[in-house]
Amino acid sequence: MADPLVQSGKRKREEESESTQTPGPRGDKAAVGNGTAASTSFPFSGFRLQKVLKESSRDKIIFLHGKVNETSGDGDGDDAVVILEKTPFQVDQVAQLLLGSPELQLQFSNDIYSTYNLFPPRPLSDVKTTVVYPATEKHLQKYLRQDLHLIRETGEDYKNITLPYLDSQSLSIQWVYNILDKKAEADRIVFENPDHSDGFVLIPDLKWNQKQLDDLYLIAICHRRGIKSLRELTGEHLPLLRNILQEGQEAIQQRYQVREDRLRVYLHYQPSYYHLHVHFTALGFEAPGSGVERAHLLADVIENLEYDPQYYQKRTLTFALRADEPLLKLFQEAKKN
Amino acid sequence: MADPLVQSGKRKREEESESTQTPGPRGDKAAVGNGTAASTSFPFSGFRLQKVLKESSRDKIIFLHGKVNETSGDGDGDDAVVILEKTPFQVDQVAQLLLGSPELQLQFSNDIYSTYNLFPPRPLSDVKTTVVYPATEKHLQKYLRQDLHLIRETGEDYKNITLPYLDSQSLSIQWVYNILDKKAEADRIVFENPDHSDGFVLIPDLKWNQKQLDDLYLIAICHRRGIKSLRELTGEHLPLLRNILQEGQEAIQQRYQVREDRLRVYLHYQPSYYHLHVHFTALGFEAPGSGVERAHLLADVIENLEYDPQYYQKRTLTFALRADEPLLKLFQEAKKN
Repeated sequence: MADPLVQSGKRKREEESESTQTPGPRGDKAAVGNGTAASTSFPFSGFRLQKVLKESSRDKIIFLHGKVNETSGDGDGDDAVVILEKTPFQVDQVAQLLLGSPELQLQFSNDIYSTYNLFPPRPLSDVKTTVVYPATEKHLQKYLRQDLHLIRETGEDYKNITLPYLDSQSLSIQWVYNILDKKAEADRIVFENPDHSDGFVLIPDLKWNQKQLDDLYLIAICHRRGIKSLRELTGEHLPLLRNILQEGQEAIQQRYQVREDRLRVYLHYQPSYYHLHVHFTALGFEAPGSGVERAHLLADVIENLEYDPQYYQKRTLTFALRADEPLLKLFQEAKKN
Repeated sequence: MADPLVQSGKRKREEESESTQTPGPRGDKAAVGNGTAASTSFPFSGFRLQKVLKESSRDKIIFLHGKVNETSGDGDGDDAVVILEKTPFQVDQVAQLLLGSPELQLQFSNDIYSTYNLFPPRPLSDVKTTVVYPATEKHLQKYLRQDLHLIRETGEDYKNITLPYLDSQSLSIQWVYNILDKKAEADRIVFENPDHSDGFVLIPDLKWNQKQLDDLYLIAICHRRGIKSLRELTGEHLPLLRNILQEGQEAIQQRYQVREDRLRVYLHYQPSYYHLHVHFTALGFEAPGSGVERAHLLADVIENLEYDPQYYQKRTLTFALRADEPLLKLFQEAKKN
């Protein structure tokens, strides 16, 4: 199942949508609200590190797999995943800290620059800790860092490898149809062009809590069904694409006062679900999936299709696949032959 | 001047190259080596927060501008910048921590998932602190988060706005020529194709410490002079570009055992210096500047030029500019007229 607690590195809407149904955020607030400050301990005894599943020194997060309860019961022990993440600074707390005389160790000093190790008081040193216990093999796989491999997919590759694979998957996108049919999340819709052929629904992405504009993230989902991805776009889709770009930008300016030149508007290839949709993210926000190996600016897509209506059937498209994704094996085997 | 201490968010080679000449890292090691553990205090008294210049909740870093020494001397006080960044986890320390019984506060628990606030012992709670004192207006500007604005530059815009601006700048790229002429960093060269027209030098980027492959980052600098950027590439440059892609990938596989499908190979537009160069970064590393609004995959560039030798003179290119960059004003004024 999707992990309802860890926010980082998620991609698939399916996971997001589950994550919003967990008590996660509510639970957090409640805990703060009624001040659940009682000290406690982990739901297991001991923790013998088996493996660092994943870590990021940039994000200050680490995913650990450990054996626990090895003393109790059968000496075999159980599996647990512990995720530690340092917390962002709170401005007011930091201001207080610097007003006082924090505990410092000088690292070095050079001209007007100096660096220190600062040891903050307890409130500033907390670490967000997530425990999955007992953890199954699926959890361990899910958190294990997977190597990425770049694929260069020609138009022929798409017809011969990717498309047959997608057709064999029968991935449900019922949740997309529920949005388009107003059976779900109707209250979240920011803008709609109801045209069946060239219209779309604009809705906040579930990764965005809508509390600050720094990480603004909305999705435009087209009403028209059967357009799997960028790869299937042709000149006939230009009216739809122009509507999404222009009306989407206007709606975001009206609702959030974010001008179009502050927005990154793009499609994913490969997308995480195969009903055409477009991402709108704040330009200053390095959104996951906005890298050159996955994102295609909608304005460029439109210009490419104006230039050659068959552009995306002909051209080679690049994308990264995780080492454990079946499609990667299919490409690797096809290359051999 | 460039900031020798803060590692995050740097772009320009000029800064990098200065940064490597500071005692920064050596200083760090020395301090560790001879155990400079003596407590100390900031080189100023008091700290009245004036402004949060920049912060990132993802990176757990915050840049603060404060008034200091307001009591002493003329009551006017001085300016200081304090940069706080949480430190990455050390696996061994964390393993020790979990073996013991760390201090925990339960946030909430749901099925097999639970979250806690963990309050680590002193060694795990240190914060990397950088002080710039006294700070000049230039420092404050340098650290101040600047809004980004997206530009869509047509071929005409390049001729009429961007190129005249670049020509007016007379930016020195002597340091590039020094590398190509072996007057500097000759010992760092990983690979060279000496051909004057279609050759290049492959060298580790200064952002990469070469200690781990996770953030592998090399730069290919072409020998041929006068190619400012992607915008000036035509079909005649295809042999050069193919050499860089193929020989660069081969050299990296030989030296670092990183296969080509684990590499992101791309150009920047706009680049940070106007002598054609190509970036090679580890696919798993979200390198600064690898976003869709700045990066162009070399393989795509080659295919576009095969498709139309004038592709990059004709097409609209998108890039982001900081609010304080003069080129942005030029584009905004040009739009008005």
